[in-house]
Amino acid sequence: MNTRIQKLSTWMKENDVQVCFVSSPENVFYFSGFLSDPHERLLGLAVFQDEEPFLVCPALDKTDAKNAGWSNEIISYSDIENPWEMIHKSINSRVKKVENVAIEKEHMNVERFEILTQMFSGANFISAEEKLRKLRMIKDEKELSIIREACALADFAIEAGCAEIKEGKTELEVLAAVEYALKKKGVREMSFSTMVLTGTNAASPHGNPGLTRIKKGDFVLFDLGVVVDGYCSDITRTVAYGDINEKQKEIYDTVLKAQLAAVEASKPGATCADIDLTARKIIADAGYGEYFPHRLGHGLGISVHEYPSLTETNPLILEEGMVYTIEPGIYVPEIAGVRIEDDLAITKDGAEILTKFPKELQIIR
Amino acid sequence: MNTRIQKLSTWMKENDVQVCFVSSPENVFYFSGFLSDPHERLLGLAVFQDEEPFLVCPALDKTDAKNAGWSNEIISYSDIENPWEMIHKSINSRVKKVENVAIEKEHMNVERFEILTQMFSGANFISAEEKLRKLRMIKDEKELSIIREACALADFAIEAGCAEIKEGKTELEVLAAVEYALKKKGVREMSFSTMVLTGTNAASPHGNPGLTRIKKGDFVLFDLGVVVDGYCSDITRTVAYGDINEKQKEIYDTVLKAQLAAVEASKPGATCADIDLTARKIIADAGYGEYFPHRLGHGLGISVHEYPSLTETNPLILEEGMVYTIEPGIYVPEIAGVRIEDDLAITKDGAEILTKFPKELQIIR
Repeated sequence: MNTRIQKLSTWMKENDVQVCFVSSPENVFYFSGFLSDPHERLLGLAVFQDEEPFLVCPALDKTDAKNAGWSNEIISYSDIENPWEMIHKSINSRVKKVENVAIEKEHMNVERFEILTQMFSGANFISAEEKLRKLRMIKDEKELSIIREACALADFAIEAGCAEIKEGKTELEVLAAVEYALKKKGVREMSFSTMVLTGTNAASPHGNPGLTRIKKGDFVLFDLGVVVDGYCSDITRTVAYGDINEKQKEIYDTVLKAQLAAVEASKPGATCADIDLTARKIIADAGYGEYFPHRLGHGLGISVHEYPSLTETNPLILEEGMVYTIEPGIYVPEIAGVRIEDDLAITKDGAEILTKFPKELQIIR
Repeated sequence: MNTRIQKLSTWMKENDVQVCFVSSPENVFYFSGFLSDPHERLLGLAVFQDEEPFLVCPALDKTDAKNAGWSNEIISYSDIENPWEMIHKSINSRVKKVENVAIEKEHMNVERFEILTQMFSGANFISAEEKLRKLRMIKDEKELSIIREACALADFAIEAGCAEIKEGKTELEVLAAVEYALKKKGVREMSFSTMVLTGTNAASPHGNPGLTRIKKGDFVLFDLGVVVDGYCSDITRTVAYGDINEKQKEIYDTVLKAQLAAVEASKPGATCADIDLTARKIIADAGYGEYFPHRLGHGLGISVHEYPSLTETNPLILEEGMVYTIEPGIYVPEIAGVRIEDDLAITKDGAEILTKFPKELQIIR
């Protein structure tokens, strides 16, 4: 059993859980090293208190799972076999009495749940999700080095995007050029749908890239991320195309000041709320409080949104190994939208900034 | 109530179902016209036998839902409100006694299911999925015209891809150029991860595009699709770069012959199995049976894989309005992989081929 599974087993013992069935591809990857998208087919990992865990996957993925480093039992099934009978047998050979089963209640669907409730009739089903989120929240050195790589590619993408900015180009043209540059470097997947927004389009936190054309005096906002070996980066930069007016400058400076202060405040012992409020106070004091309608940031890793959540009410204390975004924004409808976002890793006594593209206002000529 | 909801209500009456809670974004879109990705937030549509249906969505999406044409009640909730209490109240005001509730068991998660089972304790929960799949299987004229547009863009993408083929280019470079060309035309989403495969890479039905370089005498296989107004297209073409050998030609010709025969056989009254077997027999007779390891095709529409499924055992009879792919393939490891895929719509007395890029072997010089 690897360290991650051992930690889950310890939690199971503490909570009298005999079987934990992990079903989301992200969590199966976290524990097994095997990353896959099974579509409608069943993928899962059964973990026990002391007995050997086993992986369940479609037959055509078995070799990939082994190659990914999974050396414990694999239950694989063809499209005409029923994996649940094999699962039942394998569980029965390990545990005699199942009183509590932990599952991912936000991931598992009702169809599969009904099979499990029949299989373990009388058992309680509890949610493993809170524990799984907490385990994934603290990154180890291997995870950090992959995330660093994903962040370096995000920096490169912003650079490529800035190079594409020209009078009359559409948001989608710039977006396409950015993704083209990344694919040429071997990038296969973005963390989420890339955003390139300009003009008043960027002034909505829910804007979508389209055929709006870049013109002098506009901001161009990039929000994007790159997946490397299953881990996500997430960066936002807002740059000016030509000279901008005083109001736009004031908005930019306010966001930057808030962002820098939140980065500075990021260290072990501070709470998520502290960090959010550090930025939020600066924006409110400048008179833009109502134009910053979202949380300051979110954890990231295998998912682009995971723990910790940086909201003004989250009392969670920051610890070494946490990785999260700091992304204050000000969106004044019809005027301007600015957001600046970095990815950070909490270190022993501060934070490492993982995204490095400059944050001082960049004016593209 | 629109026609689609009326059909669902009729089914509910026939099956003594008092409440149907539709939860997948695809089905909510199908019935309401409102297409959205709610992420972890709740999106749903409650349908009744005779009473007014209502939509549930996050507050920030309410305007979009109305603009999309939904004119019945909308229950919208902020991030600090509990939508389930509002849902419960709205259902109670419509139906007095709930004995049977239909849900999407393959979509709804356990967390939400547990809320519903408490809300309607004692009720039976049945699956609405089979009925929903059958409703979506028959496309109306509006749906067909959108799919035609998505198919035309898929044809354009293959053309753009062929223009990029050059000695030494990597699969990912060609792929990036294709998506760039589409984005410039305003395309925002692909139906699935675009595939560009060459050489022995294409000889695996599970190949992934990477840094393999195109060289003379290789096939280049494109498999891609475009989303237009929520509807998907899906096309595959395999082209030759320079002269190919006799074995490659034989494989190509066999796949083409099988594909053309299956297209020809597609008409109302034939079964899915008939169509699959028409192609499968030609490939088997040519000695390649073991190298065609997947079904002949699948329905497509709002989802890239939906009903009907073209397998050799599906007795379902083809009807006007069904839209599906025909995509036979032969994959001989280390030798060559060829797949040719069209999208078709069944008409009154035959089939309309929606993808039109040439299927005779294209040799790129």
